[in-house]
Amino acid sequence: MSVPAVPDAILDRIKAIVGPGGYLEEAVDLAPYVCELRGRFHGRTPLLARPKSAEDVAAIVTICAENRIPIVPQGGNTGLMGGAIPHEDGAELLLSLARLNQVRAVDPANDTLTVEAGCVLADVQAVAAAADRLFPLSLAAEGSCQIGGNISTNAGGINVLRYGNARELVLGLEVVLPDGRLWDGLRELRKDNTGYDLKQLFIGGEGTLGVITAAVLRLFPRPRDVQTAFVAVGDVAAACDLLAGLRRRSGGRVDAFELISAATLELVLRHIPGCIDPLAGQHPWYVLAALSTSAEGETLRPALEDTLARAHDSGGIRDAVIAESMAQARDLWRLRESIPEAERYDGASIKHDVAVPISRIVEFMSRAEAAVRTELPGVRPVAFGHLGDGNIHFNLGLPPGLAVEAFRAREERLNRIVHDIAAELDGSISAEHGLGRIKRKSIRRYKPAVEIELMRRVKRALDPDGIMNPGKLI
Amino acid sequence: MSVPAVPDAILDRIKAIVGPGGYLEEAVDLAPYVCELRGRFHGRTPLLARPKSAEDVAAIVTICAENRIPIVPQGGNTGLMGGAIPHEDGAELLLSLARLNQVRAVDPANDTLTVEAGCVLADVQAVAAAADRLFPLSLAAEGSCQIGGNISTNAGGINVLRYGNARELVLGLEVVLPDGRLWDGLRELRKDNTGYDLKQLFIGGEGTLGVITAAVLRLFPRPRDVQTAFVAVGDVAAACDLLAGLRRRSGGRVDAFELISAATLELVLRHIPGCIDPLAGQHPWYVLAALSTSAEGETLRPALEDTLARAHDSGGIRDAVIAESMAQARDLWRLRESIPEAERYDGASIKHDVAVPISRIVEFMSRAEAAVRTELPGVRPVAFGHLGDGNIHFNLGLPPGLAVEAFRAREERLNRIVHDIAAELDGSISAEHGLGRIKRKSIRRYKPAVEIELMRRVKRALDPDGIMNPGKLI
Repeated sequence: MSVPAVPDAILDRIKAIVGPGGYLEEAVDLAPYVCELRGRFHGRTPLLARPKSAEDVAAIVTICAENRIPIVPQGGNTGLMGGAIPHEDGAELLLSLARLNQVRAVDPANDTLTVEAGCVLADVQAVAAAADRLFPLSLAAEGSCQIGGNISTNAGGINVLRYGNARELVLGLEVVLPDGRLWDGLRELRKDNTGYDLKQLFIGGEGTLGVITAAVLRLFPRPRDVQTAFVAVGDVAAACDLLAGLRRRSGGRVDAFELISAATLELVLRHIPGCIDPLAGQHPWYVLAALSTSAEGETLRPALEDTLARAHDSGGIRDAVIAESMAQARDLWRLRESIPEAERYDGASIKHDVAVPISRIVEFMSRAEAAVRTELPGVRPVAFGHLGDGNIHFNLGLPPGLAVEAFRAREERLNRIVHDIAAELDGSISAEHGLGRIKRKSIRRYKPAVEIELMRRVKRALDPDGIMNPGKLI
Repeated sequence: MSVPAVPDAILDRIKAIVGPGGYLEEAVDLAPYVCELRGRFHGRTPLLARPKSAEDVAAIVTICAENRIPIVPQGGNTGLMGGAIPHEDGAELLLSLARLNQVRAVDPANDTLTVEAGCVLADVQAVAAAADRLFPLSLAAEGSCQIGGNISTNAGGINVLRYGNARELVLGLEVVLPDGRLWDGLRELRKDNTGYDLKQLFIGGEGTLGVITAAVLRLFPRPRDVQTAFVAVGDVAAACDLLAGLRRRSGGRVDAFELISAATLELVLRHIPGCIDPLAGQHPWYVLAALSTSAEGETLRPALEDTLARAHDSGGIRDAVIAESMAQARDLWRLRESIPEAERYDGASIKHDVAVPISRIVEFMSRAEAAVRTELPGVRPVAFGHLGDGNIHFNLGLPPGLAVEAFRAREERLNRIVHDIAAELDGSISAEHGLGRIKRKSIRRYKPAVEIELMRRVKRALDPDGIMNPGKLI
C-alpha cells in the first residue's frame, strides 16, 4: 500500500513549534520510540515531536488536523498492546508527552494533585507522599510509564482491589481534541452532575479520541501501617477463601492480593538472582497479600495473624510468612514483580490478561488449564495475577522441545481457547492491558455488534477525520 | 407552538405491547406522573407506558423511533430538576420503568447485584443486606426513588464521601438505545479494558441517550459497627478540621459528614414534630458525622471519642454527643433528613446544589452569604449538605415581609450570584441534582463552549433523531 509521506513543509512547521531539542528525526534516535517492549511492532515515523506545553500540543494537532496527518500519542512506551507505536508506513507523526512533566498543583486539603501527562508514575507517587498522601496507582512499569499513558489505557496494577483502576483515580482532564482545540476539564470535584461525563471517553480511550495533556488525580490518606504476607495454598479456591477472610477480618483493608502459581514462582527463583523462596516445601499455589491502614496508632498485624492462623487450623492454607521489616516486604514483592522479567529470560511465551467475576475464577483456571494442555501437550501455564480483581495473567510458556516458530503458529488458536472460556464465564479478554493493535480485531468476536457500532459512532463524533491514533482500539 | 399529537394508532400499538394494566391514559391517573415534587412543572402526555421487561421497552422505543415520537423515561419521579417530566405540549410518551423491578442476580462472592431499573433504592439496599453486604447509595428519597433513575442522574447522597456517587457503584448496564436496540453491557467485572467505557455516557445522562433497563451494582462489606455523632462547631473551618481529624484517626472510615447551619436546624426544630436539639445552647454550625467499620470485633468508638476530645480541648469544637443506641442515631439522622420537609413547611425557598473543592468551601460560604445578603437584605440562608464532598445545599428562605412573587422575581439573579461564586472557585452549579430542564440553559454560562459542543456531538451520535428525553440536560 502506498501512503503519502508527511510533507517536509508540515514537518518544518511542527519543528518550529517545539524548537531545537523538541523533536527527534534520525532513525537511530527514533529507534527506542517506534518499537515496543516485547519487540512485536517496529513502526516508522518521520518525526517525534516533544512539545513542552498543552498549547504546543494544540498547535501541533491543529496543523495535523488541517492536513489530515495521523498522530500517535506516546507516554513512557510501556504498553503491551502496541497502542503507542506508529504504523510501519511512516505516515504518522509520533507525539511524545514526555516533556509535559510539570506538577501544576498540590492540594492536600482537597486530596487532589494536578499533573501534566508526561509525569512519570513513580514521580507522581513521590509528590503525593511528600504531601503526606497516597496516590495508589502502582504497577511494574511505574519507574518509566507516564500518567497520561496510565489514564489513556485505564491502567490497573496491584492496588485496584482497594483503590480502583486509573479511571477511579481521575477527577478531571485537560485534553487536546482531534481538531486541535484544548478542552479544559480539570475539575477538582467529588460531585459534578452537569452533563455527560466526557472525561470517561478519554480515560481508556488509548489516544484515539484526543491527547490527554493534564489530569486532576485523587489522593488518599497515606498508609501508616502495612502488613505483607506470603502464603502457600493448596488450590485457587483456598486462595479465594483466604481473600474473603482477610477482607472480613480487616474491614476491607486489603490493598493487594496476588496469586502466583508454583510454575511461576519456580521461573522467578530460577532466573532472578537473589530471589529465594521464603517458605519450605513445594506447594501448588502462592499468594502475596498486603493490608494497610492509615488510622493513627493502629496496626493490621493482629487481623492478618488471626486470619492466617484460623485458615491454617482449618486446612485452608499450608504455610505462611509475614514480613517483619520493610526489607522483608520488599523481598516478597520482588518475587511478584520479577515475574515478567523471569518470563523474558525463560523464552517465548503467549500472554493473556483475562478477568472473570471472582465467583468464577476457580472454574476459569481449571477449564483454561485443561483446554490449553489438550490443545498443546507440554505447554507450561504460567498463571499469576490480581486475584482480588478476578484478573489473571494466564500466560503460556514454550513446551520443551517445541520450536518457537511452531509455538507462535499456535498462538492465535491458544488465544482463542483462553478468551472463549473467559467470555463464556462473563469475563474480559483484556482486563488491564487494553486493545491497542493486538486485540483490536479479536474483541469483535466477544462484544455485541451494537456495542462495536456505538464505539464507532463515538469515534466518528469526536474524530470525524480519524487522525487520532488510527488502527488502534476501534 | 403547534405540535403533532401522537396518533392513536401508535398509542394502540404501544398499549398492545404492555397489555391491560400496563398503561395509564386518564388525566386523573396521569396526574402524579406529570408534575414533580415541588410543583415546578406540569407536563402532559397521551400515555404512560409501564412495560414489565427490557424486551417490551425495546419494542416500545422501536415504535417511537420509527415514528419520531419523543420519549421521557421516568423512575420514581423524585428528581428535582424536572428531568423526568414530559413537556406541556403533550407530544411525548412517558415511559415508566416501575414494573421492571426484578432482582436478576445476587453474587456475594463477586460482591455484585444485578437489578432491573425499576427496583426501589431501599429494596436494593435490603437485598444487599440480606446477602450480608452493603449497597451504600443512600439519599432522602430512597423509599421511592428507583435505581434506574439514581444511575441516570448519577445520584449522590450521604455516603459519597466513602463510597462514591452512583457512577462509582455501577459495573455494568443494560440499555435500550434510541433506535430500540437492546445493548447488553451487564458486565460484572472490576477490570475490563476493551474499548470506550460506554456505560459512563448513560450514567448521569438523564435518559437523553437511552433507557437504562438493568444494572450490575457493586456491593461492599456490611458495617458491623457504626458510630454517629452530632457536633457543634464555631465555624465552617472548624468543621473542615474535624473532618480531617476524623479521617486521619479512623483511617478514612468516615461514611458521612453533614454540615447543618444554625438557621437550618432551627427550621427543623420548629416544623418537624418530635425533633429535639440534642445539644444545649446556641451554636452557629452543626455536624452530623458517621463512621463505620466492617472489621470483625472492631469499633471506631475510641477513634471518634479521642478525636472529639482532642478537638474540644483545642477549641475546635464547642459541644458534641455520640449516639448510644441505634434509636439515638436515628434521631440524630432525623434532624438531617427532615431538612427538605421543614423547608417545604417554611414556605418559598430558592435552592442551590453547588460543590467546590473542599479546600475552598470556607471561602465559598462566606462569599456566598455576604453576596446574597447584599442582593436581598433579610434573605435567610439555609445552608446544609455534604461537607465531606464539598457539596453544599446553599438554599435561601423568603425574607420576612417579602411577597413570594417578589422573591421568585429575584430567583434568577440570586441563582446567578451563587453560581458565579461557585464557578469562580472551580466549583459546580449542580453537584448531585443534575441539569434536567431547570439548569439546562444556565450551565452554558459555566462550561467551556467546546464542552457543550462535545456533549451535542455525543447526543447526535447516539440519538440522531433526538427522541430521547428532548429538552433535558443538553
